[in-house]
Amino acid sequence: MDPVENSPPATALPPDQEIRARRRLLEAAIQIFDRKGYAASSVREIAEAAGVTKPVVYYHFGSKEGLLVAILDEAVRDFNRTIDAAVARAGSARERLVRLCEDVYGLFERNVSVARVAHMVFLGPRDVAPLYDLMVLERRLRDGVVRIVKDGQAADELRGVDAEDVALAAMGILEGCQDRQMFPELSQVGHDGLRRILNLLFDGLMIDRHAQGALTS
Amino acid sequence: MDPVENSPPATALPPDQEIRARRRLLEAAIQIFDRKGYAASSVREIAEAAGVTKPVVYYHFGSKEGLLVAILDEAVRDFNRTIDAAVARAGSARERLVRLCEDVYGLFERNVSVARVAHMVFLGPRDVAPLYDLMVLERRLRDGVVRIVKDGQAADELRGVDAEDVALAAMGILEGCQDRQMFPELSQVGHDGLRRILNLLFDGLMIDRHAQGALTS
Repeated sequence: MDPVENSPPATALPPDQEIRARRRLLEAAIQIFDRKGYAASSVREIAEAAGVTKPVVYYHFGSKEGLLVAILDEAVRDFNRTIDAAVARAGSARERLVRLCEDVYGLFERNVSVARVAHMVFLGPRDVAPLYDLMVLERRLRDGVVRIVKDGQAADELRGVDAEDVALAAMGILEGCQDRQMFPELSQVGHDGLRRILNLLFDGLMIDRHAQGALTS
Repeated sequence: MDPVENSPPATALPPDQEIRARRRLLEAAIQIFDRKGYAASSVREIAEAAGVTKPVVYYHFGSKEGLLVAILDEAVRDFNRTIDAAVARAGSARERLVRLCEDVYGLFERNVSVARVAHMVFLGPRDVAPLYDLMVLERRLRDGVVRIVKDGQAADELRGVDAEDVALAAMGILEGCQDRQMFPELSQVGHDGLRRILNLLFDGLMIDRHAQGALTS
């Protein structure tokens, strides 16, 4: 708002270098927040890790909180694009749902540090004011799954169960698999594992209904 | 180890009052860790909230870390008892699996503050030394589910899929439902919802196999 506050600092760089400095600051902040936690991280060490001075941080982001918000804004934008593209895709509801889950799993895989920072913010102490409404991710994913399930029900492909229940089942499976990525010491299910586990949900676990097909073959 | 260090402080109480003081300290620590986070909580305020002096905390728990470990030890013990009882239960694999998930969901429901503290410790900054191996819970639950699934496969009740995959599917659904309990602003699925969503996994989502049953009726 204030042109004086938002004007470049004395150390301002040419525009392309400024864009690169901004990107380096975001990357440095993600790594440092992830390693030390948000509260224990300082603007000074983030600036140093990005090879810039503190005024450059304040020029681009205003504050440490501004850096965190910029990181989460970018994550939410990528997430929303991924969901929208998956919902808009052609194909059976089953294919679209599996692809949606795989795409979200892949996005998480490429941004594990951001995911860990987001989890810390989200599950942090209750009397630290919530810095960011990450529930938007949950709602957007659920709405995407519900939309695809309803398409599949309208096309007589999927049973007429509660689409919100299906969303909770699919999201539970997806999140159970992707959350393991935050713990490198755990064996990772990978894209194949995720697809296999989602197929259990589509095909069910019971032998009696499965056997009907098997007996006629 | 040192009998002098472990001897009751000058403020020691009669045994029954000491047990109650220990319990009050655990409850106070759970509430304060949950509200402020582990790092920001002090032994002094926990002692005050429990109506005891600081030496009483050190006598029972040794340190703030000792308090946290005692809280988590108790949670792990309750969790393990719940799993063991559910695995030992009679009935079909389907009934046993649903009951196991409901029991764990109910335990979480009665201990949401402890669960939130455990999540904070578990997902805390990576360069804070891990204070407690909470992976034991994950492994114990998975082993319990795998055991029941294998019983169901041996009894020709469940399809011969990878039991570890089934465990990841069931645990994803269970944890997706129970994690919502940490956010009171979300609508809760409750025991009925959990059962309904698990039934989707048992019965599958596809209409073609479902229709085989419907067409013959």
